[in-house]
Amino acid sequence: MGKTVHEQVLDSAAILFAEDGYAGVSFQRIAAASGVEYSEIGRLFGSEDKIYEELLESLFSQYSLRMSAVLEGSDLPVVKVESFARALCAFHKDVPNFFPLYYRELLKPSPFFESIVLKNIRHVAYQSDNNIARGIQKGTFRYGINPANATLLLAGMFHYFFLASRIAKSLLPESINDEDFITQALDLYLNGLQKSE
Amino acid sequence: MGKTVHEQVLDSAAILFAEDGYAGVSFQRIAAASGVEYSEIGRLFGSEDKIYEELLESLFSQYSLRMSAVLEGSDLPVVKVESFARALCAFHKDVPNFFPLYYRELLKPSPFFESIVLKNIRHVAYQSDNNIARGIQKGTFRYGINPANATLLLAGMFHYFFLASRIAKSLLPESINDEDFITQALDLYLNGLQKSE
Repeated sequence: MGKTVHEQVLDSAAILFAEDGYAGVSFQRIAAASGVEYSEIGRLFGSEDKIYEELLESLFSQYSLRMSAVLEGSDLPVVKVESFARALCAFHKDVPNFFPLYYRELLKPSPFFESIVLKNIRHVAYQSDNNIARGIQKGTFRYGINPANATLLLAGMFHYFFLASRIAKSLLPESINDEDFITQALDLYLNGLQKSE
Repeated sequence: MGKTVHEQVLDSAAILFAEDGYAGVSFQRIAAASGVEYSEIGRLFGSEDKIYEELLESLFSQYSLRMSAVLEGSDLPVVKVESFARALCAFHKDVPNFFPLYYRELLKPSPFFESIVLKNIRHVAYQSDNNIARGIQKGTFRYGINPANATLLLAGMFHYFFLASRIAKSLLPESINDEDFITQALDLYLNGLQKSE
């Protein structure tokens, strides 16, 4: 089955909004990029705002679902940290417009920041915090670590890497590759987080 | 001594470009924000591009100078990692427009990306890589760590924290504060990087 006109519009809009942000994209540009008539887009969505809102909601709920899937359940805290990092990296690859949109929201929040961005990011962070806290309780992770700090560190390590490696490729030396980076980052992070024997 | 008209224009432009990026700011807006006449700005700078270029050059060379100051010299590798992280955080505070502009360049490079952004970021990263490599040679840091990965991790940890804490304050739980975060981040990072006894 091919894409619906609705999906076609959202796909094109995702690329444009990732490039130019919430306020930088008009119906005209979305029409030109998607090959869908201007009037048809108006009929389907009503306004640029509605397209942006629907897109943001779709990307952030995908993010939240994918991350929650690995943070819920009964795996050991160390395993969940690894799965979370790998899921984050897979999501960066599969949904390349998510992170540019997220960063643009952090740099200049749209009217949907609270209801969509904040809600979903907090939900995931809360689950990760709980996982770190459980690791401290179990004696796997060091006592005294603030779980919120540990979550923020983990996210930052990978977000910046993907921002640098996907978008600004020339920033990084050639010696860096994905699998190496992820493995070393996790290794360093877990080594730092775990109690020494 | 008060600011020169030149400085006044650059200060106002910094805020506007940090908010709306390279392509989003006109002479008109800079004139309105700085209180300097439109025609005077034209005479001083010639074009919006020139203002942006001068601003970027000034912020990125400040960054490079401040980071190099702590990465050069004869301190031990561990001390340099700490000083580098603290200098990075101090720079975030002192020059709040630097990081939004840097992130905007990563998201959508301007014509000055290579000549200004890349040149300075690479210079600092190179010095940090050397410091990590020296720590491995000395037996302080674990053998097998790729210095470029370690630098990228360190930068990412702090960049994302400041993006989240300065710009999107509501993203973070109240339990997070600067000094705690920096201390725990450095502790976790150095604990992860160092050889176990």
